[in-house]
Amino acid sequence: MTDRTPAAPAVTLLGLGAMGTALADALLSGGHDVTVWNRTAARAEPLAARGARTAGLEEAITASPLVIACLLDHASVHETLDPVAASLTGRTLVNLTNGTPEQGRELAAWAEKHGIAFLDGGIMATPPMIGHPGASILYSGAREAFDTHQATLERFGVADFLGTDPGLAALVDLALLSGMYGLFGGALQALALTGSEGISATEFTTTRLLPWLNAMLTSLPEIARQTEEGAPGDAANSNLAMQAAAYVNILDASEAQGIRPDLMVPMGELLHRAVAAGQGGKDAAAMVTLLAKEA
Amino acid sequence: MTDRTPAAPAVTLLGLGAMGTALADALLSGGHDVTVWNRTAARAEPLAARGARTAGLEEAITASPLVIACLLDHASVHETLDPVAASLTGRTLVNLTNGTPEQGRELAAWAEKHGIAFLDGGIMATPPMIGHPGASILYSGAREAFDTHQATLERFGVADFLGTDPGLAALVDLALLSGMYGLFGGALQALALTGSEGISATEFTTTRLLPWLNAMLTSLPEIARQTEEGAPGDAANSNLAMQAAAYVNILDASEAQGIRPDLMVPMGELLHRAVAAGQGGKDAAAMVTLLAKEA
Repeated sequence: MTDRTPAAPAVTLLGLGAMGTALADALLSGGHDVTVWNRTAARAEPLAARGARTAGLEEAITASPLVIACLLDHASVHETLDPVAASLTGRTLVNLTNGTPEQGRELAAWAEKHGIAFLDGGIMATPPMIGHPGASILYSGAREAFDTHQATLERFGVADFLGTDPGLAALVDLALLSGMYGLFGGALQALALTGSEGISATEFTTTRLLPWLNAMLTSLPEIARQTEEGAPGDAANSNLAMQAAAYVNILDASEAQGIRPDLMVPMGELLHRAVAAGQGGKDAAAMVTLLAKEA
Repeated sequence: MTDRTPAAPAVTLLGLGAMGTALADALLSGGHDVTVWNRTAARAEPLAARGARTAGLEEAITASPLVIACLLDHASVHETLDPVAASLTGRTLVNLTNGTPEQGRELAAWAEKHGIAFLDGGIMATPPMIGHPGASILYSGAREAFDTHQATLERFGVADFLGTDPGLAALVDLALLSGMYGLFGGALQALALTGSEGISATEFTTTRLLPWLNAMLTSLPEIARQTEEGAPGDAANSNLAMQAAAYVNILDASEAQGIRPDLMVPMGELLHRAVAAGQGGKDAAAMVTLLAKEA
């Protein structure tokens, strides 16, 4: 990623937190003309030393056809960009600020009103991963803008266009994060439980927890298949009723070992809701439907 | 596992639910003389047709030096065995009924009082896995009893002795189940979120969720290492404070998509508790300690 390629257009980066700085760095490594802006100007200094141009907000925006925003949150995107919307007209804005699907759609409507081509993005990477294998960024919104700037966006990692609904990138990003936090929550509970008896966390994790979770991951495609077909399977064994009955052991054991059961409580409630809804004989896929509010 | 080996001693199996039946079946395949008992006698018929001997409770117990109980729950173990404790004296009782560490310890004390060698077990397998690769059963309690009967217990899968504290098998079993339910809970939320926009569950799972969760699993050994050393690392990026701030997007997006956020709520609370406890600059390992009730 350090070679200068024929196509290394100018890019402007707004917001230089850890992630914004990593993004700007990857662009500099790719040989782009990079203009950076941050509310606290001092954060731009290391990038300036590496060849980035620093500028005031309006000047930074007009320096490049592609403006990437990586700010604190949705409110700060509007605070920053509302006053300079006219300068963005005719350019492409890629928003990599954390947000929700609704916020992505709202920004897309705002951008359209101002004649700005808009992409919303969800970064599936930590800052040190940016520009290295394993990083991917999900995009949704203006297809043409994505096609035009894809080569630039791939400086950060795999650039993955999900569709023209600008809410899709945030939706899939948050779905994946939900999966991650679920996995981490269960692992934290496991470490707390075993730690309460002085069991080695590293030995437990490498010899038991990791192989076990790897094995459990292999059941997700079948859960997904049943979910997609809208037909949760009948479980010959370990059905939801049996799981609901045995689940109390996790909560009781946590309490008895002096460990808060909080992380595990909602899954127990969901299992019991499944049984109450007549899904006790089914497999896990039956619970996906029950997560809908109207269910 | 179908060969008759020189060492195939008599075994009695109490409780013929799906799991008990699978256990008896594996013993029959291993050439053991198997005596079975179930409260509802009709459930023994398929096993009798395969060569198992059926008997009344007391007769079943005295038929074998090794008695394995796989009953509904801890209460049913006592209901079943208390009246026939004297018949168990001098034999080995292996309890594979779902339970907690406290219940395992309580049964061990009860067994000791009656002169019964006792092992508590936690089955890390579904019934169809019993006797096949991938199944493992955790045991704790009387070391000598485990050594004596290990070859028999390995009919079911890998037999894993954790230690003489009879609560250990249930503890590690429930810790692993906590990890599994965390993983499943996160995956269910991910499927519900993407499903709310009509995204294909199978495509999302195979192309995005599984690779992502596989990548996330690789961070568990570092979390475990920091947990074991009692020194959660300073996070250069994506620290707990940043995660706590962004976490609201998962809850907001779920609500906006008509999906219950319940499964994801406690992790958000834990992240905020970590920040309030001055751990905002740390990595995930800092949350393990905060799961202790006194924290």
